[in-house]
Amino acid sequence: MSTSLSTPSAALARLGLTLPAAPKPVAAYVPAVRSGNMIFVSGQLPMSNGALLATGPVPSKVTIEDAQKAAKQCALNGLAVIADQLGGDLSRVVRVVRLGVFVQSDDRFDGQPKIANGASELMQEIFGEAGRHARAAVGTNALPLDATVEIEFLVEVRD
Amino acid sequence: MSTSLSTPSAALARLGLTLPAAPKPVAAYVPAVRSGNMIFVSGQLPMSNGALLATGPVPSKVTIEDAQKAAKQCALNGLAVIADQLGGDLSRVVRVVRLGVFVQSDDRFDGQPKIANGASELMQEIFGEAGRHARAAVGTNALPLDATVEIEFLVEVRD
Amino acid sequence: MSTSLSTPSAALARLGLTLPAAPKPVAAYVPAVRSGNMIFVSGQLPMSNGALLATGPVPSKVTIEDAQKAAKQCALNGLAVIADQLGGDLSRVVRVVRLGVFVQSDDRFDGQPKIANGASELMQEIFGEAGRHARAAVGTNALPLDATVEIEFLVEVRD
Repeated sequence: MSTSLSTPSAALARLGLTLPAAPKPVAAYVPAVRSGNMIFVSGQLPMSNGALLATGPVPSKVTIEDAQKAAKQCALNGLAVIADQLGGDLSRVVRVVRLGVFVQSDDRFDGQPKIANGASELMQEIFGEAGRHARAAVGTNALPLDATVEIEFLVEVRD
Repeated sequence: MSTSLSTPSAALARLGLTLPAAPKPVAAYVPAVRSGNMIFVSGQLPMSNGALLATGPVPSKVTIEDAQKAAKQCALNGLAVIADQLGGDLSRVVRVVRLGVFVQSDDRFDGQPKIANGASELMQEIFGEAGRHARAAVGTNALPLDATVEIEFLVEVRD
Repeated sequence: MSTSLSTPSAALARLGLTLPAAPKPVAAYVPAVRSGNMIFVSGQLPMSNGALLATGPVPSKVTIEDAQKAAKQCALNGLAVIADQLGGDLSRVVRVVRLGVFVQSDDRFDGQPKIANGASELMQEIFGEAGRHARAAVGTNALPLDATVEIEFLVEVRD
């Protein structure tokens, strides 16, 4: 895969993406904690320029396509947090280890994997093979701020 | 416990269980990622021979007993993924560390622990004391493919 | 922050809190597993003296304030489990790494972060800077025993 030969920053640029500013610590929890060579990133919402890209459940309020875009935005926000932990250098990511994906869903909606792919595919585009991760994607009836998607991240890094 | 004196393979055989083929990588995520001596296994559904053992919520569409069987199948599929990561040798599992169990539930159904035991008890039967794990078992209103149960796994291994 | 100069035990005492007895192992899973220097704590319910502090969803059955108290109780129970793993010495906690918070919610209720703060703020009060953690807070339509909140914990410790 050609992306594995480029840097994460180059991949972002080629995709026409720029990382948002990393969110600031809120109250008693923080955007990320590093323990050893692992970074645990808090659940990210699809915030873009201060507003959520999508609210409400899939599919009654949000289409699958729009939910995929929301998942991609969660991933961009997660990358911003990770970059902030790494002094801006995403090439220090050794492996994207796990994504935990929660999709606000109407009862028995069953398309969470397709929506989660909006985030998973971005990880692979940015990091190549190192971006391929374990994943749990599930539905839920309610998320913070009525967001359509929330995603948490676990990545292995090097100094 | 006698199981602690046998191998995981022997325990599987004694229980009359055979591991299914490990699922193939799908799209941008993979069945498992190893980081250091930890294996993170993606959320497993109760697939058996290409079909789900149970779909829909408990208890309106699926009985507790059938959901327990589904949880056990998720665990078998998780074991297949772990075995695949370890060259088939489950005796390299040092400890089953954590199970994350999601049970598709009618609103306010409260029997998730009983259902999760379908997976937890298998882990103990296969690995003895090393199979006793931390666990979070919760309900949800929707899961991929309308599956009744999804379970992710974290195990510590040695080379 | 003054709490960073005190011990966790002193902080508990100053807050007028006493740790409950750590829950006993139930069936095939255990309250916590240590792997390396990490302790994974099973999902804790808001049990207090053998009864749940709150059952049912927020806000139709439980107020936000009562759900916050339930989250705090989950955290106290988690601390009891961690203390039990550490021979009673919570000062061996190096860092609270992650909280996974599930709030039983009416459809589209969006105040999970506020409720999760009931646990997060206690962690910071007890451990100071070391108590600031990554967090995923989500809603769900159903939890074990109809509990209003379930929280799992990951902490880094030293010998």
